[in-house]
Amino acid sequence: MGESMKNEEMETDSMIQQIKEMDISELKLLSEKIRERILDVVSRHGGHLSSTLGATDLIVGMHYVFDVQKDPFIFDVSHQAYAHKLLTGRWEAFETLRQFGGISGYTKPSESPYDYYVAGHSSTSISLAVGAGKAIRLRGEEGDRIPVAMIGDGAMSAGMVYEAMNELGERKYPCVIVLNDNEMSIAKPIGAISRILSQAMASPFYQRFKERTEKMLDHLPDSARYMAKRMEEGMRMITPGILFEEMGLEYIGPIDGHDMAQIVETLETAKKMGKPVIVQAQTTKGKGYEIAEGYYEHWHGVGPFDKVTGKSLKKSGRPNATKIFSETLCKMAEEDPKIVGVTAAMPSGTGMGLLMKRFPDRFWDVGIAEQHAVTSMGPLAKEGFKPFVAIYSTFLQRGYDQVIHDIALMNLPVAFAIDRAGIVGEDGETHQGAFDISYLRAIPNMTLFAPRDDATLEMAVEYAADYPTPCAFRYPRGAMILEPGRYRATPFQKGKAEYLEEEGEILLIGYGNGVGRAVETADRLKASGLNAAVMDLRFVKPIDKERLEEAAGRWNEWYVFSDGAKMGGVASAIAEALMPDTLEKVKITSFEYEDRFIPHGNTTLVEESLGLRPEQIAENILKRRSNH
Amino acid sequence: MGESMKNEEMETDSMIQQIKEMDISELKLLSEKIRERILDVVSRHGGHLSSTLGATDLIVGMHYVFDVQKDPFIFDVSHQAYAHKLLTGRWEAFETLRQFGGISGYTKPSESPYDYYVAGHSSTSISLAVGAGKAIRLRGEEGDRIPVAMIGDGAMSAGMVYEAMNELGERKYPCVIVLNDNEMSIAKPIGAISRILSQAMASPFYQRFKERTEKMLDHLPDSARYMAKRMEEGMRMITPGILFEEMGLEYIGPIDGHDMAQIVETLETAKKMGKPVIVQAQTTKGKGYEIAEGYYEHWHGVGPFDKVTGKSLKKSGRPNATKIFSETLCKMAEEDPKIVGVTAAMPSGTGMGLLMKRFPDRFWDVGIAEQHAVTSMGPLAKEGFKPFVAIYSTFLQRGYDQVIHDIALMNLPVAFAIDRAGIVGEDGETHQGAFDISYLRAIPNMTLFAPRDDATLEMAVEYAADYPTPCAFRYPRGAMILEPGRYRATPFQKGKAEYLEEEGEILLIGYGNGVGRAVETADRLKASGLNAAVMDLRFVKPIDKERLEEAAGRWNEWYVFSDGAKMGGVASAIAEALMPDTLEKVKITSFEYEDRFIPHGNTTLVEESLGLRPEQIAENILKRRSNH
Repeated sequence: MGESMKNEEMETDSMIQQIKEMDISELKLLSEKIRERILDVVSRHGGHLSSTLGATDLIVGMHYVFDVQKDPFIFDVSHQAYAHKLLTGRWEAFETLRQFGGISGYTKPSESPYDYYVAGHSSTSISLAVGAGKAIRLRGEEGDRIPVAMIGDGAMSAGMVYEAMNELGERKYPCVIVLNDNEMSIAKPIGAISRILSQAMASPFYQRFKERTEKMLDHLPDSARYMAKRMEEGMRMITPGILFEEMGLEYIGPIDGHDMAQIVETLETAKKMGKPVIVQAQTTKGKGYEIAEGYYEHWHGVGPFDKVTGKSLKKSGRPNATKIFSETLCKMAEEDPKIVGVTAAMPSGTGMGLLMKRFPDRFWDVGIAEQHAVTSMGPLAKEGFKPFVAIYSTFLQRGYDQVIHDIALMNLPVAFAIDRAGIVGEDGETHQGAFDISYLRAIPNMTLFAPRDDATLEMAVEYAADYPTPCAFRYPRGAMILEPGRYRATPFQKGKAEYLEEEGEILLIGYGNGVGRAVETADRLKASGLNAAVMDLRFVKPIDKERLEEAAGRWNEWYVFSDGAKMGGVASAIAEALMPDTLEKVKITSFEYEDRFIPHGNTTLVEESLGLRPEQIAENILKRRSNH
Repeated sequence: MGESMKNEEMETDSMIQQIKEMDISELKLLSEKIRERILDVVSRHGGHLSSTLGATDLIVGMHYVFDVQKDPFIFDVSHQAYAHKLLTGRWEAFETLRQFGGISGYTKPSESPYDYYVAGHSSTSISLAVGAGKAIRLRGEEGDRIPVAMIGDGAMSAGMVYEAMNELGERKYPCVIVLNDNEMSIAKPIGAISRILSQAMASPFYQRFKERTEKMLDHLPDSARYMAKRMEEGMRMITPGILFEEMGLEYIGPIDGHDMAQIVETLETAKKMGKPVIVQAQTTKGKGYEIAEGYYEHWHGVGPFDKVTGKSLKKSGRPNATKIFSETLCKMAEEDPKIVGVTAAMPSGTGMGLLMKRFPDRFWDVGIAEQHAVTSMGPLAKEGFKPFVAIYSTFLQRGYDQVIHDIALMNLPVAFAIDRAGIVGEDGETHQGAFDISYLRAIPNMTLFAPRDDATLEMAVEYAADYPTPCAFRYPRGAMILEPGRYRATPFQKGKAEYLEEEGEILLIGYGNGVGRAVETADRLKASGLNAAVMDLRFVKPIDKERLEEAAGRWNEWYVFSDGAKMGGVASAIAEALMPDTLEKVKITSFEYEDRFIPHGNTTLVEESLGLRPEQIAENILKRRSNH
């Protein structure tokens, strides 16, 4: 192992050196080779495709112009950075992309010293470049090291980017920001920023005009030169540069992000400027794979597919929770014009796309802008509408203060539909939906509930629409564990838990998708001769204190199941509810997530690594009991 | 009560009508009267002063031009909205400003139907205007109702504002945004945005130029007209408007925010435009109170003072925690050049101002930009520095995802110095530091600890500087409860709790400032003949499981004290640590904050209303025991 690591490192270093000695045509060839490798692996295992193919030429150019051994290479979101992985010692290991124990789909410093920073959530790169710039200045390394960040146009809508540009434009740390402009983020981009960027097409005209005015300037006296300069700047208004220049950043562009000579020349220039520079490069998503070129959302992240036909190889299974949410909400919105909703650049991921198409006036995509998405729904609730905020558990973290300050404090009926709650699989660490129960539970006026299966998910959407105060319900990526029809669906009643199995020696309590896991576990325990009662908690807030207290009189051994963090999670909520006196009567064991970041990979394998598969949990319970 | 409410409402309605019938000189007089009332009440009771005096003319103008009975009046941060309160039925009640049970220092819909929305955290107003705009359009009320938002220049640095402008510029909901530009937020503003806004002084030149070009245009053929228009736009570059216009918003300004005729005329124009319009109005902070005019931070929020001399009437007490933090860090930074730090527009509030002055290259104010503040410190930690993020508990909510995704996931040694933890007093609901333990505790790799008194606060700062992974320590607004020297200060040891009193029939466990409350309670219990042991938990994460388990063998009755929310809080953490088996041995009672937003007012009175004064808690404990 030590030996092979060494070899890999040597190979990396030589690759990093080799690229420096290539000429433009060799760099182009290298890009082709990288794209082939990406297409090959992603078609077999799935992964991000179109953005990473589109960014390959730029990344090859970055590695030619900058020195990854000392310059911080920062990739925004970083699902576009596969080429960077392939260039830094992970050509072979790339075979294991996004698989459990394999290469991450995102940059990850623990995986390679050439991954400067972790990313998975968007729009952090300019803040990171500012931080790196500060460190470089303090270390006296300015002139020797320079941060280079790559950010997509879709990521430009998030507030963080603006906060960072605001400081960068003031303090002028030298850095190069490659704006990878493929005129689409995951979804079709919206908003003024995307309009400004797309105005780049006016550029050839501007370029000719600029040339002409510059020649003119040579023949003019100084005062006229000033006027002409101003006039030239007037023309620039129709390029995207103005926005950045107004913020104090230099701007070059747009350039062709697939023209290697232009990429190299521009990056060389930008590197030497000694200032913060934004280089806007226009790229084509899916570049080099004809079937994917020009397509929007479908080819962003894919499962295994047939390289020749482009057809998905995934067999379709049970309907996923997102689809049930979206179709239920759509049906309701048809009948109730008060239902409105928002998504933050995830129309397909959250299923809101269906509603945006059907009701374009009542459902909005605000781009990557979770803070604004949350707050903007407050006044709609105040004015009598029923807003749904559909968002991934992990991304709602971006709107946390807004949930507290702009929704909960106003006690307004905004419903948070929390998708991707629990382990999300191959996206991994940065995307796990582990914390929402813990961080939302602390918020006054907030109600938290969760469906256990497909039918109760439909009921949850209906319940949320008429709920009079802020509420949130969570559901997993993919299908719910509990098979449809096993238990009769009963409507939600505020703060009421429900027994699914009332006989048994021990009590299993499930919340949300955890109910399915509890039932699976009960099945296995039963096979081993141990009967377990099963309670669906349904509401973690307000919690069914009365039923829990009564249960404490019947069972001493409790086991808690939820797809969420243990710290501040469901078992914790149960313990709080039993304080002080009833707490003495019970032994609570939590099968929630331990206190560490959860790695990427197939969800079943990840759960297995955490000891959270039903057979493991059943064995665990039986062992505990035999030890007593 | 019912009758007096009715009278007050009538009075309000007549005031709202009266203002519509005033002429400019009467409006001016009204402004004067309002400023006098503000100065009088604030000088006696304390409150926000300079911003609210500066905004008075604009607010009077808003009430003249818009109709508060139907148009959403949205105030960003809303501490500048005193004039609005005085104009809407709270002239007399204003006497109780910020006092417990009295008028809030911020807009608050439960206080008045004319307060459209709550605010206390900054930079939410444009999102709220977008939401209100959507509601108005859906209700078919466009043309009849229009949102009017007032936002300060300091609030313009936050990402939310940009996210909201991005959508507003695209969808063009009619609204008027009054940019109250006093060229300073709480602190001196930083960053490109503030530079852009301050370029407004170039405007008179621009105005003359514009007039001239417009006359010229009349005499030109169409093609030349196009060129001239572009040229005119070139000139506009030197005004702040360009930034907003680029984002698709109309811009008018800058106008004199104290010239009533100009205010009224401009707002009338903006209201009629049927588009989103930004009106930049230049105002003077402290307007009308000579002693405060031109001063920066001091007159932002004040305690009672002598109106004639401007001198504070507050007697100085024990040094507050902020000061101890700041002086300790300053001493350490003198010796260790690796120590760096950031504040988000709170240099004085967090004490970072002292460090910025002393070490301008190592301590930064990034403006109201918590997300960027947090993330930008990551690379500094990675590059070997020791960053401190000094921030209020309530504002760190804005950087929550960044703590998780950009610091904790990287496991970098960034230290969060959490000021204003617990009840903050007169600022109230929007500012209580209630949730940080709950929301930070769920984050893997995070260490949470807290000092109990002045000496251990110094130790906490030292401990944090050398801590190898992410950590956060919290301390209250004002002085720590526990008097200095009562217990010997002992250094922090990772995850180790400490007994302060080891003999007793019951066990009190304190965390942070809660230790002081526990000791006060123990003193009172002792006076009633009940001895209580006292443990300083010191770390809520990692928690001292071993000592807690051992304690469970010695005491059955535990009482937990912390200045934080009960849900997911310290008692909850203790219960988790004892799961499953030891949990059976103890009865845990938490004296943390119940699950509701905590109102404003003198901290002692607020605590009393929550039953959290030491004498109340002691009585509570004695009563519980006598009932058993």
